[in-house]
Amino acid sequence: MPRDAGDASDGEQPDADRGADAALRRVPLRAGENVFNQAVTVDRLARGMALKQKPICLWLTGLSGSGKSTLANLLEVRLHGLGRHTYLLDGDNVRQGLNRDLGFSDSHRTENIRRVAEVAKLMVDAGLITIVAFISPFRDERQMARDLFAPGEFLEIFVDTPLEVCEQRDPKGLYRKARAGLLKNFTGIDSAYEAPEHADLRLATTSASPDELVDLVLRSMA
Amino acid sequence: MPRDAGDASDGEQPDADRGADAALRRVPLRAGENVFNQAVTVDRLARGMALKQKPICLWLTGLSGSGKSTLANLLEVRLHGLGRHTYLLDGDNVRQGLNRDLGFSDSHRTENIRRVAEVAKLMVDAGLITIVAFISPFRDERQMARDLFAPGEFLEIFVDTPLEVCEQRDPKGLYRKARAGLLKNFTGIDSAYEAPEHADLRLATTSASPDELVDLVLRSMA
Repeated sequence: MPRDAGDASDGEQPDADRGADAALRRVPLRAGENVFNQAVTVDRLARGMALKQKPICLWLTGLSGSGKSTLANLLEVRLHGLGRHTYLLDGDNVRQGLNRDLGFSDSHRTENIRRVAEVAKLMVDAGLITIVAFISPFRDERQMARDLFAPGEFLEIFVDTPLEVCEQRDPKGLYRKARAGLLKNFTGIDSAYEAPEHADLRLATTSASPDELVDLVLRSMA
Repeated sequence: MPRDAGDASDGEQPDADRGADAALRRVPLRAGENVFNQAVTVDRLARGMALKQKPICLWLTGLSGSGKSTLANLLEVRLHGLGRHTYLLDGDNVRQGLNRDLGFSDSHRTENIRRVAEVAKLMVDAGLITIVAFISPFRDERQMARDLFAPGEFLEIFVDTPLEVCEQRDPKGLYRKARAGLLKNFTGIDSAYEAPEHADLRLATTSASPDELVDLVLRSMA
């Protein structure tokens, strides 16, 4: 039976296209632009060096209303102020685009986090300090994310705000709705949040200001 | 019936977490690092300015063996040499990771390109010059990709190499296998390649060197 040729016809077969043009690649690059022109490809190291930073994934996990997005935004602003190049992956830019085909069943939630982790990996490969802000309630999926990265390239950051505090803030009334039975599978109410046991960093939002917490993150990256 | 709460429990509900911490956000940022600290968030414009470049998606389409990967790599090296910050999305880094759940049925191929386009959009949003190298044989899917971007942020680049030339190169023997009926749905043989009718740029690989063709791309970005 003929093998499906798709793997050779979307340009995604490693080396298929590349090998095809080995001859072309021997054409000398234009001299004199700079030393990077000697490279055949631009790799992660070169990208990071060009950006003058060590690419890393900062993975923020925590309950709804714990302060992930606030801290992520502040962190990004601070890093930007320090001349770092960052990107923030969160529901705002992922759920409406890449993951808009996904619902909220268990399997879709896992797939949601899997794709976010894979995109974060590409972003880190691109040289960026990549901040992820998703509840990501399950240890297994956070471990799956970590496993995509080299040691030291991934920091699990637990945005630790007690459920009572999150519920008290409840600016969107989501906890109230969940308590009233109007929302199901709400993390912390009728769906588990598995707090990290060995997070690289724990941010206790009730005992320090956001700026102090961001300082902690910046120090942990140094 | 209770609404599924997933949309409020993964941090992806726009404003859910953000609103939750409006109070936190009023805490003043540390003064004196630089002017960017005034911003509440870092947006695409700020990222592009920090990288000193105009983010754009350069979408290379063409047959297997047409030279997409070779040109994409050379383009990236040249841009890197010019101090630009780039990322290349191709089968090597996408098919083994983000899209490893996808096969080669028509619907999976379309989904493959959809995700690539969405990730390219995130990369452009991150400020990067994003090069995409996939056969992407169908006009509809390339149009779908283009539609994700603002005008001027997406260039469709047709790597135009005649089928006979691609087939003659055939370093992996894929065309030979396809002709022998050992591969099915091979683009150009028993699956259509819909050549762009209004590509932003056409690179005729048989009448110019790779370096000259990359010059054309660089000029079209200026």
